[in-house]
Amino acid sequence: MTSTTATAMTTTREELDEIVRDAASAAPVWHASSADERAAWLRAAADALDAAIDELVEIADRETRLGPVRLRGEVGRTSGQLRLFASVVEEGSYLELTVDDGDASATPPRPELRRLLVPVGPVAVFSASNFPFAFSVAGGDTASALAAGCPVVVKAHSGHPELSRRTAEIVAAALEAAGAPAGSLSLVEGRDAGNALVQHPVVQAAGFTGSLGGGRALFDLANARPDPIPFYGELGSVNPVVVTPAAVAARGGELAKGLAGSFTLGVGQFCTKPGAVFVPRGAGFEALVAERAGAAVGGPLLTDRITAAFPEGVDRLLGDASVEVVTGTPSAPGADIAQPVVLATDAAAVADRPHALLEECFGPVTLLVRYDGPEDLRRALEAVPGSLTATLHSEPGDDVADILEVLQRKAGRVLFAGWPTGVAVTWSQHHGGPWPATTSLHTSVGATAIRRFLRPVVFQDAPEAFLPEVLRDAALARLPHRRNGVLRVP
Amino acid sequence: MTSTTATAMTTTREELDEIVRDAASAAPVWHASSADERAAWLRAAADALDAAIDELVEIADRETRLGPVRLRGEVGRTSGQLRLFASVVEEGSYLELTVDDGDASATPPRPELRRLLVPVGPVAVFSASNFPFAFSVAGGDTASALAAGCPVVVKAHSGHPELSRRTAEIVAAALEAAGAPAGSLSLVEGRDAGNALVQHPVVQAAGFTGSLGGGRALFDLANARPDPIPFYGELGSVNPVVVTPAAVAARGGELAKGLAGSFTLGVGQFCTKPGAVFVPRGAGFEALVAERAGAAVGGPLLTDRITAAFPEGVDRLLGDASVEVVTGTPSAPGADIAQPVVLATDAAAVADRPHALLEECFGPVTLLVRYDGPEDLRRALEAVPGSLTATLHSEPGDDVADILEVLQRKAGRVLFAGWPTGVAVTWSQHHGGPWPATTSLHTSVGATAIRRFLRPVVFQDAPEAFLPEVLRDAALARLPHRRNGVLRVP
Repeated sequence: MTSTTATAMTTTREELDEIVRDAASAAPVWHASSADERAAWLRAAADALDAAIDELVEIADRETRLGPVRLRGEVGRTSGQLRLFASVVEEGSYLELTVDDGDASATPPRPELRRLLVPVGPVAVFSASNFPFAFSVAGGDTASALAAGCPVVVKAHSGHPELSRRTAEIVAAALEAAGAPAGSLSLVEGRDAGNALVQHPVVQAAGFTGSLGGGRALFDLANARPDPIPFYGELGSVNPVVVTPAAVAARGGELAKGLAGSFTLGVGQFCTKPGAVFVPRGAGFEALVAERAGAAVGGPLLTDRITAAFPEGVDRLLGDASVEVVTGTPSAPGADIAQPVVLATDAAAVADRPHALLEECFGPVTLLVRYDGPEDLRRALEAVPGSLTATLHSEPGDDVADILEVLQRKAGRVLFAGWPTGVAVTWSQHHGGPWPATTSLHTSVGATAIRRFLRPVVFQDAPEAFLPEVLRDAALARLPHRRNGVLRVP
Repeated sequence: MTSTTATAMTTTREELDEIVRDAASAAPVWHASSADERAAWLRAAADALDAAIDELVEIADRETRLGPVRLRGEVGRTSGQLRLFASVVEEGSYLELTVDDGDASATPPRPELRRLLVPVGPVAVFSASNFPFAFSVAGGDTASALAAGCPVVVKAHSGHPELSRRTAEIVAAALEAAGAPAGSLSLVEGRDAGNALVQHPVVQAAGFTGSLGGGRALFDLANARPDPIPFYGELGSVNPVVVTPAAVAARGGELAKGLAGSFTLGVGQFCTKPGAVFVPRGAGFEALVAERAGAAVGGPLLTDRITAAFPEGVDRLLGDASVEVVTGTPSAPGADIAQPVVLATDAAAVADRPHALLEECFGPVTLLVRYDGPEDLRRALEAVPGSLTATLHSEPGDDVADILEVLQRKAGRVLFAGWPTGVAVTWSQHHGGPWPATTSLHTSVGATAIRRFLRPVVFQDAPEAFLPEVLRDAALARLPHRRNGVLRVP
C-alpha cells in the first residue's frame, strides 16, 4: 500500500544553511529586478512546467494517485497562476505607490513622502499534500512570493518527494535560464529541515498549507523567534453549507447531485470540501443525498497516513451518540480505496459539541446537520469554526439575513450558487478566513496573495537619483498611484 | 516626584467582560454603517477633542509634564488624524473593491466574484506613555480601527490615567451623540486587564505602542490564544543616522543644530529619536554637536519609571569600555530634570556588541558612532536592529549606494533631509519597520494603518440583494474599484 517509490530524504543543517545563503544572495537581485524582468522570469517558469507536463504528471500520479486528468488540469492551473502574477507585476498596483508632495510653506513644513511596497526577503513555503502542483513547489505561495520579489525555499511535502524534486529542478533551471539569479527557488526535505527553515534568521516570512497540528507548530516556532516573522498558514476548514426548506423543495435533486460531486471531488481531499451541510429536518433531502452519494465512486487517498486517518475520523464521528450513517459503508482500517460516506447529526448536538463534530476530516465524508427552524440553525452555525468558505442555498422569499450575517463572520468566501470546491485564480479571489481556516487577514489564492510578502518603505525628501525607479515621476506617469490623496490610473 | 495625582485603578474581570460585551454588541452596527455615517462619527470625535482642548491639556500637562505648547499641538494632530480617516472612509479605496464577472461559457464555468474588506471586529488598543493624545485613547490605532468599522477597547497607560478617562468619556459621548452605538469606545485600566483583553475571545486584533518587553509579552499572549489574533506592536527603534564626511564639511554646523534639536525633542521620548548617529572619525562633527547639545535644555521625563530608567540606561552605555561622554553630565539617580547627554563609541564596537550599544534608551541621549571609512560603516550598520527610520545626510558626489541598500533593509522610513522626529500624518506615511521596530508589515501612522483591522470577504454568485451595498453596481459607479483586472477611478 506504499504510495511512493522515491526514497525519503532529509536536508542536513549544513545543506540548509547553504541553500538559505544562496536565497539571501538572490534576494537583492529580485528586489532590484524590473517589472519586465520579473514577469519574464515568472512566465519562463510557467512555460517550463507546461513543457514538462507529461513527465511531471506521470510522477505525480504515481506518488499521489490523483489520476492524470485531474493532475493535468492542476498543472494548467499552476502555470496559469504564475502567468497571472506576471500580469500583476506588470500592472503595478501591488506596489501601492503613494506620493505626498512637500510644502515648505506649511506649518510645520511638510516633507515630500514617496511610499512603495518592497519584498520582505527570502520566504519559506511549506507545500501541501493535496495539490501537488497548485499548492506545492511552484504553487500559489511560491508564485506570489516570487512576484513580490522574494526568493523561495520550499519545504517539500513527504507525500510527493520525487515530484517536488523534479518540479524544483525544472523551475529553478527555467528561472536561471531566463536570467534570474541562482538561489531563486530551492528545496529542502524532512521535518527537521522545515522547523529549522522557519526559524532561520535569513527567512523573513512563511507560507503554509496543511493540517492544524502541523501548522500550529510552525506558527508557534515563527512567533517564538527572537525576531518573529509573519506566518501565513491555511490550517483546516469545514466549509459549512446551509440549505433552506424552500431550496430543497425547488431543486433538492440538483443540490444533492452537486453535494455528492463536491464532497467526493479529489476523493474528498480539498481544503474547500463541504464538511457540514445544514439541512431542514424531514424535508426529504437526506434521501436525495443518499441516492446520489450512494452512486458516487471512491478512490485511493493521497498517502498512507491519510489512508489510515480516514476510517479513524469517520469512526470518531460515529462515536458521538447523535451521529448515524445516511449512506455508504465506512472503510475498514487498511482499505486501499476510500468509499464515500454520508453521516447525519442534529443541530443541537453541533451547538453542544462543535469540537467533536466539526473537526476537518480529510476524505470523502460529509456530515448532514438536521435543523428544526431558524433559531436551531443559527445556534449551530454560531458554533462552526472559522472556515475558508460558507455556502447558502436559498430561494427568493427566504428570510436569510440572520444566517448571512453569521456566514460572513465565519468565512472568507460566501457562495450563493454551486459548491465551494474549485477556487478560481483571479484578481478578486479570497482564500482565507477566521482561525483556524487561516492565520492571517490575507489570502493564499488570487492576485492579492502578493501582499503577504511585501513591506512598506517611505522615502522622505529623497533626491530623485536615490529613489527606486518606480517612485520617480517618469514611472508614475505610467503606473497606478496615489498623489496627494488622489488615486490615479494613467 | 510623583507625576500623577489621579488614583491608579484597575478594571476587574467582571467589568472587562461587560465592556467587551458592549463592544461586541456595537460591532455589527459599525460593520453595517455607511461611509457617511462612519465619517460623521469620526469627525464628531475630532470636534469634541478640539472643543475640550483647554481641559484636556491641563490634565495632560499635570500628568506628563510635556508642556502646554507641545500638548496643544498634539491635540490638533490627533483630531486631524481622525478627520484624515474620515476622508479615507469617504474616498473608499480602502475597501479594495474587486469584481470579476462570471463567464458561464468558460471551461470550467467562471463564477462571479465580488470582494471587499470588512472590519475584523472589536479591537484592543494599548496606548503609549509618550504621546498622551496622538498614540493614546483617541490616537492613531483607535482612529484607524474605528475607520475600519471596529469598536475599540483601550488599555489606558498608567502614566496618564486621568487624561485617559476624560478623553474616553469625551470621545465616547461624542460618538454616541453623533449616532454611533454604545460600546464604540471604552477604557480598561491595569496590567491584568490588558493581559485579559488581548486574550479575550471577542477581541479580534490589537494595536500597541510601547516597550519591547511589554510588547513582546502581549504579542506572545495574542499568539498563544487558541485562536491567535494579529498583534500590531511598535516596540522600539534606535533610528540610525549616517553623516558623510562631505556633509560635515558642507553643513556640519547646521546638522549638529538639527541633531541637538531632534534628540532632545519631547525630552528625548520620541519613538523616532535619532539614537545612533554614524559620524566620520576626526571630521570635527563631535565638537559641533557638543556645542549645540551643550546649549540644549533638559526637562522632566514622563513618569517616575522613565525618570529612574534614564540615568540607568546612560550608565549601562558608559559601562562599555568603548563609550565616552562627548557633552553633558549624566543625570544623578532621582534627578527630576533629565539633562541632554551625548556619548560616543566606535563602529567596530557597535558591530561587535550591537545588543549592548544599540538598545533604545528613552530620554535625551544619543550615541555618536565614529567610523573609519565605508567598510567600517557598513559593518556597523549591518548590526543595527530594525528601526522605524534611517536617515542619510550626504552630498552630491558621495558614493552611498551600499549604505542606502542597508538603510532600506533596516528601516521603514528613509530620510534624506531633516530629522526623523516628526511624523507627518498623510496618505503615504509609513511608521513601521523590521523587528523590533514593529511586529508587522503594516504602519501605525497614515492612511494605510486602516488595513490592519480589515479582512477580505468575497461573494460568489451573490444575488444583488445579498451583496453589501458598496459591492453593488450602483455603488461601483462612484467608488474606486477593480473590475476584471482593470483599476477604475470614477
